[in-house]
Amino acid sequence: MIENTYYSQDIHGPYEIYDLGNFDLDDGGAIPDCKLAYNTLGTLNDDKDNAVLVTTWYSGTTKIMEQIYIGEDHALDPSEHFIILINQIGSGLSSSPHNTPAPYGMSNFPNVRISDDVRAQHKLITEKFGIEKLALVFGASMGGQQVWEWAVRYPDMVERIAPVAITAKNSSHAFIFADTLNEALKSDPNWNGGNYNKSSDVRVGLFRQARLWAVMGLNPAFYTKEHWKNMGFSTADDFITGFLEAYYEPLDPNDLLCMAWKWQRGDVSRNTGGDLKKALGRIKAKTLIMGFKGDMFVPESDLVYEHNMIDGSELRMIDTICGHFALFALEPGYMPQIDKYLSDLLSN
Amino acid sequence: MIENTYYSQDIHGPYEIYDLGNFDLDDGGAIPDCKLAYNTLGTLNDDKDNAVLVTTWYSGTTKIMEQIYIGEDHALDPSEHFIILINQIGSGLSSSPHNTPAPYGMSNFPNVRISDDVRAQHKLITEKFGIEKLALVFGASMGGQQVWEWAVRYPDMVERIAPVAITAKNSSHAFIFADTLNEALKSDPNWNGGNYNKSSDVRVGLFRQARLWAVMGLNPAFYTKEHWKNMGFSTADDFITGFLEAYYEPLDPNDLLCMAWKWQRGDVSRNTGGDLKKALGRIKAKTLIMGFKGDMFVPESDLVYEHNMIDGSELRMIDTICGHFALFALEPGYMPQIDKYLSDLLSN
Repeated sequence: MIENTYYSQDIHGPYEIYDLGNFDLDDGGAIPDCKLAYNTLGTLNDDKDNAVLVTTWYSGTTKIMEQIYIGEDHALDPSEHFIILINQIGSGLSSSPHNTPAPYGMSNFPNVRISDDVRAQHKLITEKFGIEKLALVFGASMGGQQVWEWAVRYPDMVERIAPVAITAKNSSHAFIFADTLNEALKSDPNWNGGNYNKSSDVRVGLFRQARLWAVMGLNPAFYTKEHWKNMGFSTADDFITGFLEAYYEPLDPNDLLCMAWKWQRGDVSRNTGGDLKKALGRIKAKTLIMGFKGDMFVPESDLVYEHNMIDGSELRMIDTICGHFALFALEPGYMPQIDKYLSDLLSN
Repeated sequence: MIENTYYSQDIHGPYEIYDLGNFDLDDGGAIPDCKLAYNTLGTLNDDKDNAVLVTTWYSGTTKIMEQIYIGEDHALDPSEHFIILINQIGSGLSSSPHNTPAPYGMSNFPNVRISDDVRAQHKLITEKFGIEKLALVFGASMGGQQVWEWAVRYPDMVERIAPVAITAKNSSHAFIFADTLNEALKSDPNWNGGNYNKSSDVRVGLFRQARLWAVMGLNPAFYTKEHWKNMGFSTADDFITGFLEAYYEPLDPNDLLCMAWKWQRGDVSRNTGGDLKKALGRIKAKTLIMGFKGDMFVPESDLVYEHNMIDGSELRMIDTICGHFALFALEPGYMPQIDKYLSDLLSN
């Protein structure tokens, strides 16, 4: 357990903590005093049928989701919906390697799966709020893996899902890409087997990871069209330093590795003995899949493949020149598309 | 200067050496006793109008080019053409950091540009063979950068060009990607500022680079379709180990860095004060641009952009699921497409 002031109420609050107690994990082991950091916006109505669950991506937090996706000018409007935002395990705010006391923290933190996250979120939703139906589960990238798992694991509890830029079964290519992100951290001379004294000791590795994201998180068109100019940066390198390195620099390396391990193995077919079609066949929720044109590791073809396995599902490709990191809403045209598709989904 | 037996006649021969003497470089400095390793196949006819120049890519050699692209069953047929294959500077066979004696070798090797390569090749072609016209200049990836430079620098000497999977001006995205390849080497604990005792000291870095290529050299479809099975590998990881790591393992890190520096800055508009349209406007050669569908860092849109600047040029996108590394001919359908387009070009 180490201190990292990035993961704080000051920066990512306000949030509440829900203590799950000793939480057994699907891959064995447990997280003692497992905590979920969450926040709510809006009011749960008397019928308890206006609840929307929002999950977090690799490196993301609920505050980031709130700032980008939620508000009175968006489809996810707290004046209509009771929005529950939950930070995933390993996010740095919920139980994570860096904030878990010895002997279970840091490099000893157990392997967590997307299914563990969703089971933990289910406890919070049902035990704390007594909610039996979710009007929508929404999340992007790794957040979307949790969305998929919700729809397959608790089909009767989920009325609508909207996973963004992610498949229900992670691809081999994305797995290999995530390996390079992990290696960027572990090859830092100060990595020390994951037992560093402060997150920033592994700064070189974090910067190296940021630069891998510069290649795979964005895409050729982003740079060719010099979209970084529209974001206020003077050069591509200025964008990498000022946006990507700045974003990754304060993060905790073990927390990132915990999330990456989950991301790599995200696969709803674990619920059905490896049969993806059968797993997706379980889904009862209205399903809106959104993808990004030009995404380097979640290509349209992979989304189409799963879309075709889900009767009545919709697939919408978002126009963007930003690739996967479109999810940060790096261009003015992004949120109007997301809001339109989500509004349509919510109105049905 | 160190010994590396990978770069040998046994493995990449037979080849000849042409000594350029002291060779001044465009960026300043010189390579003393600058040597080009080259090979020829076929016979130069009396009119000296059947010469085809074949260049090499990043990490490649003329032997690799010969094995893949040249033969009686291919468009580049030594029974018709006099084929001159030249290893680029930094290739490990021509003058390169690892084989240049102190004090100019290893980390002291000067920065070389694509334009230097082409000027050096021009000397060999004209001085050694007395050739004034090249029927075709052909090369893929970085080899294609040399092709572009030939057509812009010596427009009256080149009748046809066929650059494959490469733009005439390197993209910002590819530059950033190449940075990550370089960083993979330089972050090796045994890197020692480039002054290691043998190439294999930097094995960890070479393997790390191989895994970055696994992400960017191939593409999602390659893995989703499990194309590695068709290549005789049992898993994706087996492919990475057995093909990519095996390919990069024997290479010299300083040589790779020398080539990467050139690749990153490849830009024919250096001939025309930064005016790309003007540079491409100089081209008199029949121009056949070939690209790969699904190439992660040389997308079709970048090729279209330059194609539109060259009157009468053709652009052919090769069907492949291998991305950039299609250039290794990893599928049976690859060479028939290349051969067809090259045959058409050569028959005009």
